[in-house]
Amino acid sequence: MATTATHQQPTPERFFNSINAYEQTEAMKAAVELEIFTAIAEGNTTAATIAKRCGAVERGARILCDFLTIHGFLTKEGAQYALAADSALFLNRHSPAYIGTAIEFLLTPRLREGHARLTEAVRRGGTALGEGTLEPENPDWVKFAQAMMPLMHLPAEIMAAELRKGGEAHKVLDIAAGHGIFGISAAKQNPAAHIYAADWKNVLEVASKNARAMGVADRYHLLPGSAFETDFGSGYDLVLITNFLHHFDPPTCITFMRKVYAALMPGGRAAIAELVPNPDRVTPPTAAAFSMMMLATTPAGDAYTFDDLEAISKGAGFARVELAPPEIGLDRLVIAYR
Amino acid sequence: MATTATHQQPTPERFFNSINAYEQTEAMKAAVELEIFTAIAEGNTTAATIAKRCGAVERGARILCDFLTIHGFLTKEGAQYALAADSALFLNRHSPAYIGTAIEFLLTPRLREGHARLTEAVRRGGTALGEGTLEPENPDWVKFAQAMMPLMHLPAEIMAAELRKGGEAHKVLDIAAGHGIFGISAAKQNPAAHIYAADWKNVLEVASKNARAMGVADRYHLLPGSAFETDFGSGYDLVLITNFLHHFDPPTCITFMRKVYAALMPGGRAAIAELVPNPDRVTPPTAAAFSMMMLATTPAGDAYTFDDLEAISKGAGFARVELAPPEIGLDRLVIAYR
Repeated sequence: MATTATHQQPTPERFFNSINAYEQTEAMKAAVELEIFTAIAEGNTTAATIAKRCGAVERGARILCDFLTIHGFLTKEGAQYALAADSALFLNRHSPAYIGTAIEFLLTPRLREGHARLTEAVRRGGTALGEGTLEPENPDWVKFAQAMMPLMHLPAEIMAAELRKGGEAHKVLDIAAGHGIFGISAAKQNPAAHIYAADWKNVLEVASKNARAMGVADRYHLLPGSAFETDFGSGYDLVLITNFLHHFDPPTCITFMRKVYAALMPGGRAAIAELVPNPDRVTPPTAAAFSMMMLATTPAGDAYTFDDLEAISKGAGFARVELAPPEIGLDRLVIAYR
Repeated sequence: MATTATHQQPTPERFFNSINAYEQTEAMKAAVELEIFTAIAEGNTTAATIAKRCGAVERGARILCDFLTIHGFLTKEGAQYALAADSALFLNRHSPAYIGTAIEFLLTPRLREGHARLTEAVRRGGTALGEGTLEPENPDWVKFAQAMMPLMHLPAEIMAAELRKGGEAHKVLDIAAGHGIFGISAAKQNPAAHIYAADWKNVLEVASKNARAMGVADRYHLLPGSAFETDFGSGYDLVLITNFLHHFDPPTCITFMRKVYAALMPGGRAAIAELVPNPDRVTPPTAAAFSMMMLATTPAGDAYTFDDLEAISKGAGFARVELAPPEIGLDRLVIAYR
């Protein structure tokens, strides 16, 4: 986001920039689609050469690159553009950490539409789209599974490593597995672990394919259907619940966590990864702002504080709840012990 | 815009926030529509009381108010919200400086649509919408005239006062008058001035109504039609060209400024108000980012630097070009002397 000039007097600048903030969305989308960052990584550093590489005209490339510079994704010296550190790592297609595909999910029409009807959502206290993103077999979750794995790859490795500190898990349940990367990372770090992946049937096809590609297919098992209705079985020593609880209200979360509790062995752990705002609910900004995404796109979801997640877990019978130290991408890791 | 946490390591947070920046647009739109700021100004400071005043439910109001706090429009202490200084002045309907109506123009579907097709615009070097916002009698300019006057009221007074320092004008031409406030402010500050307002016929109905309401109708004259084709007459000592040149490419601007030059008396002034980026075209952020609006919504418009505007003016025959000291809202004032 741009730094706005500091004014002594009140100014409508912040309002103006807020109303026009959608330009940032569209500019990033265009930059990813046109491979602007990749072009610069390949050594094209002027508007003219970037334009040539990207199939654009110089004026278009210049204005887009200036805009990306204003918002911190590029730097500019004279007429030469260069990649900011984050852009070099995450937005260059040649980088193994490339995450540009995430726009395919983050900008699905359904999410945009939920926000376009935000006034109605505030009036109701929940999405104006009925079940919002929670419809059974919603094809957007296939898109999620296909598009979001790169963004979650490193976080999944950090989370798996952190969880190993508490002991090797042998039977792992991965709730709303999506791309499957959280369970797959656990399997890769622990050759004895079997992963049971729960998600909609259409989504599990993606997870299953990824498990094969990453060499853990023989220890990868599928539990298709609603996470609230599927029989998980029992005897798990670890349940991964990543970016799932935020879709539901606290009573529904408690109901769900009871089901998790029942599936765990005594001493087993539920590993909850979530965007976790501070108790003030307005910091840190990215985690706190995630409440808005849930208001706009789900009937009753929210970004939960640690206290909320502790209350949910204890309400479901868990004995002890801890906040693990590392950041898991934009998430924090909360561990509930049976 | 939110301050993002400073990370030592590269993080996808900036990318994530950029892709989701459209949420800021929708949140501000919802807040204005629901009169959240007005509700707080009236003494409703908790989510529950704000919700009641705004016809919303508490959860919706809480999440929206938290989001507005994250982005600097509100402050929050415990569960109490208060207005930031800018919000109190500009976003409370009871404030004489209320500018919330501006969303009616700033969020016209045509502007959004131009950005939704930004990839195409970058490829072409101009809007994907044909003539974009420049179509004759485009009803969006009526919306502009109706919606944007509050935002321009104070800037227009500052500009009129600054221009008086260079001498009282008696015959003033107001190009693309819109709401008319720039010419009307000149007329109010100088009882001898006659204003000739040029704009599309449908837009001039708004300007004309405002001139009547502000008591200057007897000195307010209409020049309907395209600014490029209308016969302006001659003998002007001041021509106001506010937020107009950015819609066109430099050769078109020069052609237009020649017409202005011809309409001015010797020694007369052209007063150009524009968002003026620095020569680097990436600072200050709001003015520099305005290029993107022009790329997305016009065939060849741009945000022009002072050097650009000087070259355009001198190319049209003007003898001398100056940057005036005061900020005119988000604009700067450039004065070209015949």
